[in-house]
Amino acid sequence: MDLDVGNALAAVAEPGVPRDALERLDDRVAAAHERIERGVANGEFGYASLNLPETADTAAVETAADRIGDVDHVILVGIGGSALGAATLADALAGPDAAELHVLDNVDPAAVERTLDRIDLASAAVNVVSQSGTTAETLANFLVVRDAMADAGVDWTDRTVVTTGDAGNLRDLADAHDLPSVSVPDGVPGRFSVLSTVGLLPAALLGVDTDGLLAGASAAREKLGPSLFDSPAYAYGALAYALDVRGASMDVMMPYAEGLETFAEWFAQLWAESLGKDGLGQTPVRALGATDQHSQLQLYRAGPHDKLVTFVGVDDRPDVPIPSADLEGLDYLSGASLGGLLDAELDATEASLAAAGVPNLRVQLDAVDAESVGELLFSMEAACVLAGELYGVETFDQPAVEWGKEAARGLLRGDRTLDEGDSLEVE
Amino acid sequence: MDLDVGNALAAVAEPGVPRDALERLDDRVAAAHERIERGVANGEFGYASLNLPETADTAAVETAADRIGDVDHVILVGIGGSALGAATLADALAGPDAAELHVLDNVDPAAVERTLDRIDLASAAVNVVSQSGTTAETLANFLVVRDAMADAGVDWTDRTVVTTGDAGNLRDLADAHDLPSVSVPDGVPGRFSVLSTVGLLPAALLGVDTDGLLAGASAAREKLGPSLFDSPAYAYGALAYALDVRGASMDVMMPYAEGLETFAEWFAQLWAESLGKDGLGQTPVRALGATDQHSQLQLYRAGPHDKLVTFVGVDDRPDVPIPSADLEGLDYLSGASLGGLLDAELDATEASLAAAGVPNLRVQLDAVDAESVGELLFSMEAACVLAGELYGVETFDQPAVEWGKEAARGLLRGDRTLDEGDSLEVE
Repeated sequence: MDLDVGNALAAVAEPGVPRDALERLDDRVAAAHERIERGVANGEFGYASLNLPETADTAAVETAADRIGDVDHVILVGIGGSALGAATLADALAGPDAAELHVLDNVDPAAVERTLDRIDLASAAVNVVSQSGTTAETLANFLVVRDAMADAGVDWTDRTVVTTGDAGNLRDLADAHDLPSVSVPDGVPGRFSVLSTVGLLPAALLGVDTDGLLAGASAAREKLGPSLFDSPAYAYGALAYALDVRGASMDVMMPYAEGLETFAEWFAQLWAESLGKDGLGQTPVRALGATDQHSQLQLYRAGPHDKLVTFVGVDDRPDVPIPSADLEGLDYLSGASLGGLLDAELDATEASLAAAGVPNLRVQLDAVDAESVGELLFSMEAACVLAGELYGVETFDQPAVEWGKEAARGLLRGDRTLDEGDSLEVE
Repeated sequence: MDLDVGNALAAVAEPGVPRDALERLDDRVAAAHERIERGVANGEFGYASLNLPETADTAAVETAADRIGDVDHVILVGIGGSALGAATLADALAGPDAAELHVLDNVDPAAVERTLDRIDLASAAVNVVSQSGTTAETLANFLVVRDAMADAGVDWTDRTVVTTGDAGNLRDLADAHDLPSVSVPDGVPGRFSVLSTVGLLPAALLGVDTDGLLAGASAAREKLGPSLFDSPAYAYGALAYALDVRGASMDVMMPYAEGLETFAEWFAQLWAESLGKDGLGQTPVRALGATDQHSQLQLYRAGPHDKLVTFVGVDDRPDVPIPSADLEGLDYLSGASLGGLLDAELDATEASLAAAGVPNLRVQLDAVDAESVGELLFSMEAACVLAGELYGVETFDQPAVEWGKEAARGLLRGDRTLDEGDSLEVE
């Protein structure tokens, strides 16, 4: 993975980072790196996540996956960081013959019903994931899935693998029924857990190359150092921060690879929940190239200069030639391939934004494979930790979501009414 | 459909709209309404879209759908406005036994290959959609699909239905092979075409109640009038505009219904491509409740006050009770249903943002059904047209995407090199 930051400089973009400001920022990167390395070395909460390529409990993952064995469907019951990592790995890396992953990360009755209706539960495994063992959506869905299995005559204790903390009621459940289980490691917040048991177990059930994934992450880990000019991860975090404080209040994550569409969602959680506090934080916006050229590009190029666009390009793609055409005006497609067309669109869009002075960064991967995806995910985590240091926020907590959680519980218990603000209805 | 704008007022939110400013804005709404009605009456480009519930060529849709008959798969080859409307209708309204819709709206060779590999082409229909008949991505994919059909021994001329303008090479192709076809109506830009042949044909192939959809749109049309206080559509457009100019530079579209997840993407195109010009335009951000409470809510509540959050709630949902639990701490779930939990989360999140002074609007639908979805889609189109008048932009064009399109063609032809801005690589 490498990163081109040229189109984020003030010589090209407005807002843009002057070259001398980048040099000065590099001193802060060096200090932040020192802080981060100390946290990593001491296994401090959150920072410990950056140890994962080495500390992940791959043996436990393998044992649990072996106990489940071959299935056609994996139903992942989890939400937020308990779901997005697995979904990202599945969409990027699961082969065409892998089990199908169904993520129940919402409590929409219509969607849950439809998902369960179209799965043969006799050939399905369930992975229920909640660090605390108390997440309302996850436990509600798990109870519904368990019931559906009973209705289908399937023994749920035979098909359920639990991912949770060392204590709590999901741990008790696993113990009571001798379910295969893995532990969420200490010090790893959900949104940083993709390279832990949380992401690796469902990946293993889908046959993803988890060793390659961790090797890629380790390679990115090796590149962290005291200068942004030597580390793509830190360069990304530093530039995103520097552009935000200059007015790019959004970061559009726009991979040119459908397999990375869910990666953009994973990134959006990482960025929003880690940095969105104290009135600060850049808003992540998920996009997909080339599709969103026909939806969002008009705004990106001609709208306010309030966003950074991050492109993700890919060197190696499958070769699918475009057949020759009996249609007029298509001479330029003859001899091209779908991948060639996609790459040309990326290059043209990057140039189009640069010409309009819209700041953009380009992440380039060798391929959408386990090593490159591991490197990408680890790099974005490190970028986020660095950005958190530069903003001076508590990167690893998420206090603002508690109010609503407690309020929702109160509403369901019937012991709370809400002041829903003002009401002015237009009917 | 009704709209609650109370939490967008200055009494609750910052930024918020003072009540007297809203009264003054209503004078501008009256003037804009007059302009819009004139455009609609004269069938002017773009404005003509608001005539669609009455002018849509449903007979042509029915004839074309009948010629295709029953299939298990519908492959829609189109991009942007040629795809998002159909995808929105399919995800919101297709029944569990409907044909499956596969949208090829990108030229990623890995994704196209995988999609074609897992479809039985003998039971598939192809709907190729391009107004101009020259869209590079669409034609490239169509050529690949046609080839795959030939390889599978399927006569593509027997399974292809064309949606295009009155002239151009797709029209010629349809004529040459006597393919079933429908015409994209005059005066309707792609992002406003969901209620035309463009959206209705694939919907009909999936058995969607297109009459109900158009009836819902007509009901919304009836509600347009000279005051935002009488029209949810205009109230939405006016408030989004008024909040943007006061600092809410993003509009987070967050339906609490998985079936409306694609609606948020459709909205994002409508909003971005229509209003993102002349340095103006609010950036649409797609979200999904309750899932994104565990991903984005921290930022929305505790980050900068630079966004409006639009909730979409639903009155009637399927009843899926949450089974009673042998797990501790879940007493508050007993007797509840998944829908009840989802609604409680929406109410709590709305109150949580109001308490933090984050501006939000709430759209409430009767159900995720054809009438309500028709009303919603039409209302958002009218809201967008109104907002365009208030911003004073050319709502119906998208000039900024042309530069990149031409550059990509030049790259493929090999007769163009790009100035890709500056380069500073970090490896």
